[in-house]
Amino acid sequence: MMTNKINENKKTENNAANNSVVKLSEGSGGEEMEKLISTFEFFKGDWKHHDNDSAVLDKIVFTTDSYVVTPIFFPGGNIGKLAFCGTVNDLSVMGANPIGISLALIIEEGFPKEDLQKIVNTLGNLAYENKIPIVTGDTKVVEKGKIDKIMITTSGVGLLDEKIGALDKKLNAGDKIIVSGTIGDHAVALLSKRFDFETDVNTDSKPLHLEMAGIRALIKQAKDITRGGLSSVLNEFCERENVSMMIYEEIIPVHAGVKKAVEFLGINLYELASEGKLVCICDEKKAYEVLSILKKFNKDAQVIGEITECKKEGSPDVVCQTAFGKKIIHKPTGNIVPRIC
Amino acid sequence: MMTNKINENKKTENNAANNSVVKLSEGSGGEEMEKLISTFEFFKGDWKHHDNDSAVLDKIVFTTDSYVVTPIFFPGGNIGKLAFCGTVNDLSVMGANPIGISLALIIEEGFPKEDLQKIVNTLGNLAYENKIPIVTGDTKVVEKGKIDKIMITTSGVGLLDEKIGALDKKLNAGDKIIVSGTIGDHAVALLSKRFDFETDVNTDSKPLHLEMAGIRALIKQAKDITRGGLSSVLNEFCERENVSMMIYEEIIPVHAGVKKAVEFLGINLYELASEGKLVCICDEKKAYEVLSILKKFNKDAQVIGEITECKKEGSPDVVCQTAFGKKIIHKPTGNIVPRIC
Repeated sequence: MMTNKINENKKTENNAANNSVVKLSEGSGGEEMEKLISTFEFFKGDWKHHDNDSAVLDKIVFTTDSYVVTPIFFPGGNIGKLAFCGTVNDLSVMGANPIGISLALIIEEGFPKEDLQKIVNTLGNLAYENKIPIVTGDTKVVEKGKIDKIMITTSGVGLLDEKIGALDKKLNAGDKIIVSGTIGDHAVALLSKRFDFETDVNTDSKPLHLEMAGIRALIKQAKDITRGGLSSVLNEFCERENVSMMIYEEIIPVHAGVKKAVEFLGINLYELASEGKLVCICDEKKAYEVLSILKKFNKDAQVIGEITECKKEGSPDVVCQTAFGKKIIHKPTGNIVPRIC
Repeated sequence: MMTNKINENKKTENNAANNSVVKLSEGSGGEEMEKLISTFEFFKGDWKHHDNDSAVLDKIVFTTDSYVVTPIFFPGGNIGKLAFCGTVNDLSVMGANPIGISLALIIEEGFPKEDLQKIVNTLGNLAYENKIPIVTGDTKVVEKGKIDKIMITTSGVGLLDEKIGALDKKLNAGDKIIVSGTIGDHAVALLSKRFDFETDVNTDSKPLHLEMAGIRALIKQAKDITRGGLSSVLNEFCERENVSMMIYEEIIPVHAGVKKAVEFLGINLYELASEGKLVCICDEKKAYEVLSILKKFNKDAQVIGEITECKKEGSPDVVCQTAFGKKIIHKPTGNIVPRIC
């Protein structure tokens, strides 16, 4: 049943192999997407960019993300939670304090108001609890069939800590790679709802601004794990910073339910999205202190590897030591799993 | 044919009269939408709000808007132009210099890359020509049928002029109301494409930051005319500022092609969207100077009326003097015209 659905998905993809139209895989956060958006050339003024997740001008950090997840309600959260946390996290990993979030809703005519209210309440509660205000918005309603239920775009503005600035410090061999908790929880929670299997895994969607405020003076760089999972994040670090890295499979924190789902579904753990975890990189000497702080928020935080060297022509970026030898962690390609954020 | 399509649209609306679901009219920028979003209560922190179009914190202005227009290409522009100009204008009318725009694309699988490139090029050229950078973005691709072609959400950050601050000065009886050019052009250009009639009217979609930079030291407040047309803008001024106003039909600038379409289609001129026009209000003594500046950009700029008095219980907000007597300009209700931005 599940396998059928996954296969159907692959079929759709193959049907659209025509290169003159946009393919599903070109929005999956992997290599194809990079290629698609590489044709977008915009005047960027004086803003600085580390990747496509946010931009920095003086002390201002600015980011945006659309959320098109199916289903919109899933174990532990809903599309509103994803949108709030995703934007807060994009600002936070740059070293910024989020100061304001915008909320743009596109709603299908006939969408239940009760569901809308649940989503809006989730957003409202998160804003209130985290004291990160939702300051401006837009609401569009489109004819039935023109959109699938509801899609949300949140943007965010943050201000950098004056003393620390943007987190874009140079990475060196020996620097430690730390994750803030188990990986892949969000993807499995979502897949359990889509493919109707039992699991005790909930989405890990959460705002990471407090974790980041705790560690930002100690680390060199950070990224939250979203589409494309750990594979995307680690490969992006390597490409951008021109380094290679080694991670150790046995110490990567994974929820037992995620492990089970990965085996059961035959999917790649490293490509599964989290929505409330980050990877940070710091000098070896600071790793213990960073880990202690992260463990206060989540006991599963762990050092998972290190920067090995400057990138060499032809050598792999991300190598993973497993019980059976070394394997390369490639940047995801194709449709990683069905839409999950 | 045209009337049929408009009627069909009304039918859909009636079918969804059930109040437990979201209706099309609740996203039209009129009274129903206000009621719907009045249930959204968010923590707003220290940000100041004039309405739902933008928020101000110290010198920072922040805004967002989604664009779901059909068709996506129309006389004189496309959805990308609307998105860029709409966000620039929301910042500009608050008195801010736009410093950065974010671009979130949600694309339907199978969407022609040629069309995507056209839209992206339009955005790129506008950014370059106007020196307003597009600094961050997001691209999502969703399965065929889950969205109608492409939807765009742009957000924007602007900085207020230090000397002038936010344009929220108190309105008084006698203040003049000025429009920066003809009204309703965008709606008619779009309708001509949807209902297949001939017209020489193009969208008026354009960025208004230069106009605003020219007049912002001289005026009290401004708003760009979008969904809901002049009716929405003027009624919003009245509600927010607790004033009434009088406008004069004969001097309101209208393109001959728009006049013709309004008669032909039996639609309300005052409810038609523009996408590159603004209404500003200034002290009577400064009206001539403001008008002279606006006329440099568009010879059709015109003083169209004045603030009459403080609002009185039960008296209308916006009165329009016509050749046949006075009429009240109500805030739009229902589906103004099919989706136009």
